[in-house]
Amino acid sequence: MNNIQDIIDLINSNNNFAIVSHTSPDGDCMGSMLGLYNSLVSYSKCVDVYLDDEIPKRLSFIPGAPNILNSFSPKEYDIIFALDCGDIKRLGSFSESLLASGKVVNIDHHLSNDMYGDVNLVIPDMSSVGEIIYNILAEGNLPINEKVAMCLYVSILSDTGGFKYSNTKPSTLITVSKLLEFNIDHSKIYTKLLSEKTKEQVILSSLVSSNLELYFNEKVALLYVTQDMLTKSNVNENDSGDLVNIARDIDTVEVGILIKEKHPELYKISLRSKDYFDVRCVAETFGGGGHTKAAGCAINGTFEEIKAKLLAEIKGNLL
Amino acid sequence: MNNIQDIIDLINSNNNFAIVSHTSPDGDCMGSMLGLYNSLVSYSKCVDVYLDDEIPKRLSFIPGAPNILNSFSPKEYDIIFALDCGDIKRLGSFSESLLASGKVVNIDHHLSNDMYGDVNLVIPDMSSVGEIIYNILAEGNLPINEKVAMCLYVSILSDTGGFKYSNTKPSTLITVSKLLEFNIDHSKIYTKLLSEKTKEQVILSSLVSSNLELYFNEKVALLYVTQDMLTKSNVNENDSGDLVNIARDIDTVEVGILIKEKHPELYKISLRSKDYFDVRCVAETFGGGGHTKAAGCAINGTFEEIKAKLLAEIKGNLL
Repeated sequence: MNNIQDIIDLINSNNNFAIVSHTSPDGDCMGSMLGLYNSLVSYSKCVDVYLDDEIPKRLSFIPGAPNILNSFSPKEYDIIFALDCGDIKRLGSFSESLLASGKVVNIDHHLSNDMYGDVNLVIPDMSSVGEIIYNILAEGNLPINEKVAMCLYVSILSDTGGFKYSNTKPSTLITVSKLLEFNIDHSKIYTKLLSEKTKEQVILSSLVSSNLELYFNEKVALLYVTQDMLTKSNVNENDSGDLVNIARDIDTVEVGILIKEKHPELYKISLRSKDYFDVRCVAETFGGGGHTKAAGCAINGTFEEIKAKLLAEIKGNLL
Repeated sequence: MNNIQDIIDLINSNNNFAIVSHTSPDGDCMGSMLGLYNSLVSYSKCVDVYLDDEIPKRLSFIPGAPNILNSFSPKEYDIIFALDCGDIKRLGSFSESLLASGKVVNIDHHLSNDMYGDVNLVIPDMSSVGEIIYNILAEGNLPINEKVAMCLYVSILSDTGGFKYSNTKPSTLITVSKLLEFNIDHSKIYTKLLSEKTKEQVILSSLVSSNLELYFNEKVALLYVTQDMLTKSNVNENDSGDLVNIARDIDTVEVGILIKEKHPELYKISLRSKDYFDVRCVAETFGGGGHTKAAGCAINGTFEEIKAKLLAEIKGNLL
């Protein structure tokens, strides 16, 4: 494990940088990439930023997002930053050729990381890669301006669920307080990222939650989305993400389940828990995986079969 | 306006304290009262804490809540703290006799405050009274422990909407970072206060949002709650509070409206805006009031009449 000063030295002593992050980009991925990008640009460095995926519409406002390149044409870089990516395969199809074209600096906060970089800075205690980037920039006296602050605020906000999750440490909030000193419109960014929905999403939420089912003394809540509901509400499947939280956020509930119909005989399952229940164990039973409190899997069968299997698996481990 | 040191001196040089706050208690009221209460108790002072109202169930977990007294029996206090109350009338029915029984210290953050105290500390720039209490305790080296930290976290969390609103300043987050140092389970408190719903509230949300209406290029969203929906979902009217946010939080929307049926010919209206629209002006037209971005009124008439009147009033001021 290398320390922050090594990375500061690499920034100061080189000129051509590339930045890359994982596919299915989220707030931390986009915010940390563009935070570093905007700082290096202000520091008069040559920087290219790459992503092998589409930029989600709700993240397209982040300063620098339009400059993200989608495909890699062979070029030599002094340094390639790979951010928020524990497994090099998640960098996408061009990762191999890109990473071959310079020295790789791997900056991450995932507990499991393959340490694939020439330099590796992996700090699982950090809320987000955005927070690590802030520490690098601050410690190295590298440029932090309103644009950089916006990007890093997006990172930390996203990966802490709005400063809600337990990865929000005192030091996280001190970093955020410093970002707010740059007079960013944090309230607007917060609303855009975590509160806003499309009218279609409101309609879908309404359809889905009208079918709420509760089990085992209301400790388990189950919701489902059918292809028909997606059609009726005109919501793209990728935009239906946080519906499982409606189940988990019910006051009596420990485990929230969302069963999403892919085809009549294939269902994707999202599982969330609140306090003690290890949903990863349940997901793994069905060939899936994830974290203790957020996991998922895919199961073949009819809706009723799958529901019965899931409930049977969960029942035994409820307190 | 007196300063914080005057209040610290009063705490150090007196022994018998009462604490009171406004009716319809919210997170800031309960959190700031009980934060001060727990600190004074740890400082071996005699303290009584009063509220002329029921304690909402979702706030009953705050340390010290069971000790809150509902009625005042004449007693002499050295100091009465009146918290989070710009207008002395909001203290409730026993306020007059209570306030006559000691020196009154008025601590508040409302822009309009009658300065009814013998000592007044009114700081509108503060997110919450909880933040002011923290500053008093910290500056005076008065006890801050896990219980106090929980209470003050509840205050600040509530009045900033989970650190979302623009009253969240860098200094606010530094204060919260200090509260988190006391190892409070902040994530659990956050979920309890801002994320959790009852199953009945989920059903009501579903019923209400299934009737979403959009107007004027989807800049205005309208939802309504009927007595029938409240009966069907088994939700008490007082627990249906934040439904108007479903309307406001739609991405295209500037003004969100909730029309709540009281009787077939009387409706309560909640209005929320996002960026520029002054909903207080609209509310005042109908004899109501409030703030620029959150206001309300009551209107007599049929649902269709009221809807038409509201939309006509709003239309002219949309950009």
